Amino acid sequence: MKEWVIGIDIGGTTVKIGKFNLTGELIKKWEIPTNTSDNGSHILNDIYASIKQEIPNLDAIQGYGFGVPGPVHDNFIEVAVNLGWKDVNLPKTFGDLVNNDNVVVANDANVATLGEAAHGAAKGLSNVALITLGTGVGSGLVINNMIIDGVNGNAGEIGHMAIHSNYHFPCNCGNVNCLETFASASGVRNLYHAIAENYTGHSLLDDIDHPSAKQIFDTAKEGDKLALQVVEEVADAIGYGCHVYAMLVNPKRIVLGGGLAKAGDFLLSRVQKAFLGYVFNPVKDTEIVLATLGNDAGIYGAAEMVRT
Amino acid sequence: MKEWVIGIDIGGTTVKIGKFNLTGELIKKWEIPTNTSDNGSHILNDIYASIKQEIPNLDAIQGYGFGVPGPVHDNFIEVAVNLGWKDVNLPKTFGDLVNNDNVVVANDANVATLGEAAHGAAKGLSNVALITLGTGVGSGLVINNMIIDGVNGNAGEIGHMAIHSNYHFPCNCGNVNCLETFASASGVRNLYHAIAENYTGHSLLDDIDHPSAKQIFDTAKEGDKLALQVVEEVADAIGYGCHVYAMLVNPKRIVLGGGLAKAGDFLLSRVQKAFLGYVFNPVKDTEIVLATLGNDAGIYGAAEMVRT
Repeated sequence: MKEWVIGIDIGGTTVKIGKFNLTGELIKKWEIPTNTSDNGSHILNDIYASIKQEIPNLDAIQGYGFGVPGPVHDNFIEVAVNLGWKDVNLPKTFGDLVNNDNVVVANDANVATLGEAAHGAAKGLSNVALITLGTGVGSGLVINNMIIDGVNGNAGEIGHMAIHSNYHFPCNCGNVNCLETFASASGVRNLYHAIAENYTGHSLLDDIDHPSAKQIFDTAKEGDKLALQVVEEVADAIGYGCHVYAMLVNPKRIVLGGGLAKAGDFLLSRVQKAFLGYVFNPVKDTEIVLATLGNDAGIYGAAEMVRT
Repeated sequence: MKEWVIGIDIGGTTVKIGKFNLTGELIKKWEIPTNTSDNGSHILNDIYASIKQEIPNLDAIQGYGFGVPGPVHDNFIEVAVNLGWKDVNLPKTFGDLVNNDNVVVANDANVATLGEAAHGAAKGLSNVALITLGTGVGSGLVINNMIIDGVNGNAGEIGHMAIHSNYHFPCNCGNVNCLETFASASGVRNLYHAIAENYTGHSLLDDIDHPSAKQIFDTAKEGDKLALQVVEEVADAIGYGCHVYAMLVNPKRIVLGGGLAKAGDFLLSRVQKAFLGYVFNPVKDTEIVLATLGNDAGIYGAAEMVRT
């Protein structure tokens, strides 16, 4: 008898594993390290061993959903740089290990979006975008309850959308002024350095050598004008990104997750205001909210792919 | 026996009607004026009468597809300003007239996208965006062969996406610097006036009082430097719009239609170049092509909705 569904979120450092019952409740979660040696060839075996230890009778498992850090199209992973993977047919390889053909894989940001749509900040909604504001900017899109992966798995790459700007922020992708260079932790620092350079007033940040995004936000919350100016520009960039999603795919709700979103309403209210400045009237009711599942969004979404 | 499918494209001035056989071939097309008096309440009756005249035996008709100028969600039209319509349940009203429950309606830009995807410049492709560069900028999106209409029918409104710019071009929608104010016929004129104002050289356009978009393009083709500068900026805006589609939904092909697209390769090559300057590497192979169905894209797509 089938009792469990497994949601697995493979990151560059750890693999998060969730054991869900058939109604989608998270019963237990745990982590194992991601062994990226030998081109990541041990990762799937490690996951298999870990699950087998937790649930010796694999026949009780209905299916396995995976989120991976890289573009996925039709369950095929061409490349996942952080794992060392190239041309991996995960459903086949892992399915053979566990003797189960209900194995599904998708991009981690898309999977997290599905998680927030199934159990989190967009519960029960079928048209949802997620933007994660962390070290970089990730994003996923669910339309009519389907993950939109695009023709080669690159949909939702709003983090590398170019922003017209007088700043000049090089991005890791090789381009300049991607949304990520404004709307991520490094974006906060980019904006801080650019604005501070010409700032003539005094700021509490003057005494800190290389303030982190968190320090800049905390200082802004204390009312520091320079820090506030940085936060306003970060919020403006996020609001612009939200408006682009609203105009192109008209989702019901846009969910903001990742480290920056921990600033809560302090950031959210500014993003909403910036959004309204950009968006045109018929989509102004698009809801922008904070994610609620945090780092668990991935395992929730992964489980959801094979549960339904 | 079912023999025909009818594709209907309702515009503010004319209604285009196409009679297709069951394999999707266009057998005959014709137009009738759009009677917008009395809140457009005669439009559906006029269409009914015109079809009945062409095909007296309505039982031979498998279904009727409609494109309308306004947001449509789940076959319901909340408002179509140009027709005088408000809260119209077209499938019910028209279905009762023709005694057929295979009546489907969608936004005209989305329907045209489906037309280009089924029979035109993106034939056989399941992930396609269309951008029509006419008086304004319209756009539609087909993902996995489905029209994406969004949660209240406003998906694909890339024409009103805000562009960061040092120009200040008011848009009909009430906002400023929408893509449409750069990438449409009026956008060409906006850019011409803004650039000409500070242009110190001589231009062939100096002798024309209010040059049209076509005149500006024709003059650019003759090598006029001012006109060329305008075309470059128009192409840049279109390329930016294409890059946003590519980054967010990763379609296989982006089709450019509408009056401006008649400039052909002269515009297209510049758009492709601008696109490559914005887009990030994994989606750089997104194809940007010219539409091939012209004004017939709507009836083709409309028919396609009920044929398949």
